[in-house]
Amino acid sequence: MKEIKVELGDKSYPILIGSGLLREHGLIKKFVNSQQVMIVTNETVAPLYLERVVSNLAGLTVKTTILPDGERFKTLDSMNEIITAMLRYHFSRNCTVIALGGGVIGDIAGFASACYQRGTAFLQIPTTLLAQVDSSVGGKTAVNHKLGKNMIGAFHQPSAVITDTDVLDTLDDRQLKAGLAEVIKYGLIRDSSFFDWLETNIEKLLDRDFESLVYAIEISCRNKAEIVAMDEKESGIRALLNLGHTFGHAIETGLEYMDWLHGEAIAAGMLMAADLSERLGWLSINDVNRIEAILLQTGLPVTLPEALSPEKVRQLMAVDKKARNGQIYLVLLKQIGKAIVTNDFDDNALDMTLQQYSREKRSN
Amino acid sequence: MKEIKVELGDKSYPILIGSGLLREHGLIKKFVNSQQVMIVTNETVAPLYLERVVSNLAGLTVKTTILPDGERFKTLDSMNEIITAMLRYHFSRNCTVIALGGGVIGDIAGFASACYQRGTAFLQIPTTLLAQVDSSVGGKTAVNHKLGKNMIGAFHQPSAVITDTDVLDTLDDRQLKAGLAEVIKYGLIRDSSFFDWLETNIEKLLDRDFESLVYAIEISCRNKAEIVAMDEKESGIRALLNLGHTFGHAIETGLEYMDWLHGEAIAAGMLMAADLSERLGWLSINDVNRIEAILLQTGLPVTLPEALSPEKVRQLMAVDKKARNGQIYLVLLKQIGKAIVTNDFDDNALDMTLQQYSREKRSN
Repeated sequence: MKEIKVELGDKSYPILIGSGLLREHGLIKKFVNSQQVMIVTNETVAPLYLERVVSNLAGLTVKTTILPDGERFKTLDSMNEIITAMLRYHFSRNCTVIALGGGVIGDIAGFASACYQRGTAFLQIPTTLLAQVDSSVGGKTAVNHKLGKNMIGAFHQPSAVITDTDVLDTLDDRQLKAGLAEVIKYGLIRDSSFFDWLETNIEKLLDRDFESLVYAIEISCRNKAEIVAMDEKESGIRALLNLGHTFGHAIETGLEYMDWLHGEAIAAGMLMAADLSERLGWLSINDVNRIEAILLQTGLPVTLPEALSPEKVRQLMAVDKKARNGQIYLVLLKQIGKAIVTNDFDDNALDMTLQQYSREKRSN
Repeated sequence: MKEIKVELGDKSYPILIGSGLLREHGLIKKFVNSQQVMIVTNETVAPLYLERVVSNLAGLTVKTTILPDGERFKTLDSMNEIITAMLRYHFSRNCTVIALGGGVIGDIAGFASACYQRGTAFLQIPTTLLAQVDSSVGGKTAVNHKLGKNMIGAFHQPSAVITDTDVLDTLDDRQLKAGLAEVIKYGLIRDSSFFDWLETNIEKLLDRDFESLVYAIEISCRNKAEIVAMDEKESGIRALLNLGHTFGHAIETGLEYMDWLHGEAIAAGMLMAADLSERLGWLSINDVNRIEAILLQTGLPVTLPEALSPEKVRQLMAVDKKARNGQIYLVLLKQIGKAIVTNDFDDNALDMTLQQYSREKRSN
């Protein structure tokens, strides 16, 4: 078992990564300091892993909320459903909320935990690659709004992240690929040697080679933990983690949180960020091609969805947490392994990028 | 103008108390460090003070959300209405939310500010006595749930509290009296000489004697600021501020947040807490009578509402943020000016108190 510490003073916590952790007697319970436990999961994960987690919490009062699966259920209503269940069962604020699922479940459950009686303890058990390498670490919680992704939320750190790599066995290929988008992101924003490694090993990862997956999860978590420790509330460097996200969130919002997975939208977004970076003279065409190649090899989308025009995406990009005084700020690449946040780009260049990656355009 | 500092490290902020502050050129703007401002208010306050506040924010992008008036609108839906407006106007997280109203507006607006893009700046302009002496100070924000009051919320400190005492001129008598309940609370929990002063000066306060009101607001805010500075997140002493609130919240929830004002429910609740304290041998009957007398003199309720049975109230009391492992914790009085939090009371004694103050009982 690997242990990575997220250093946040008295809010520090470990990320535990290993095979079979959900079966390990006493491990989960070690991080539960309350009698009452609410496990939040979804209809896909529940039949696979809920019983295993519950059986590890013998002696405690364990209740569950099972939500439908999918980003479009990451709403204030779902959050309220969890809160309602906790109230029905007379949960005190001295309880623990466990998120058992992917990024959507982690985000909703974490936000419910942040708000229930103004804050309860929280534990992350991520069951998708994307959640394991990214969303379960760092305390960002949120639900979506029709007008913008992750617009209602809180910073609420878990007391631990328990990553059982065995759960990836049941993850479908599409989800695995979506998770790899965020893995590739770490290489692009701050770890060029990891990007090189990914280029060499992407087929192994797609073939679910266990050692390779564990290595990718570990390096991703180390990168994330370092960044979060430096800038918990995203006043600076943490924003770099949003490479491709302003584009990606616009895609997700435009599609009403249906059809595309978060990681898929981020993949297309990262390539557009790379393209814009090239237009600004920072990235070489060769670098953009490398990025496109690894995304294609992974089986991730590299264009906008057909349903969205460049104009629509552009308009949705204005609603972004990095926007200030009406200006769009983007994470762009100075080189592979070096990202910056900037509003110093030509609006026309952004328009050209969006045109370039619009499906309409491509099919001409 | 009086200035009281709430000492919370880098989250410290001033409470400014004085006549005519809303007319003072440049004062409000001094606490707004953003271009975009969302003023949240209600249908009662808007016609009276909205224009005055807006005119003090010339040069900024000012939008308003006007909610219906009343505790029953302190819901997740109202909070979402504010968020929706902010998204429609493309507000960035670098904006300021101003609460212009009483405790309900302060709580909803503060919660919306806490959650919008995971947190924006926040300014309190309380327009009721209750908000001025209590709810605007200390960073507790929340909305109600059908099953329990203030069950969904966050700790989110404002950057300042601007208390213009002139606004009390337009406050109706019932609201003034409700606010006095929280003023009396400070005397009961930690300031017996203030309680003595209140006994002597309650008629002056009811007659809206300006000097007396300002003094009462100032002493209340000093007490609140001291407690909050010691225990921001209510891990200990801050809970004392909830004298009467476990009873009171049960009343409010039982009445579906209609008919009774918060301060009214708290008044009846404080007397029941005093009665229970007397049953436990802590308070003298004379003390209980003094408390009942000042509440009656203020024109506040001293019994349960007719619509609620003692059994129903008892059941609702189990859903309380101070409850732990199914046990009800109450703030009780060792003497006038000295409160404690305890679960060390006989359940029968609590039942007898509830019976004693049930309206059915009294009308027999």
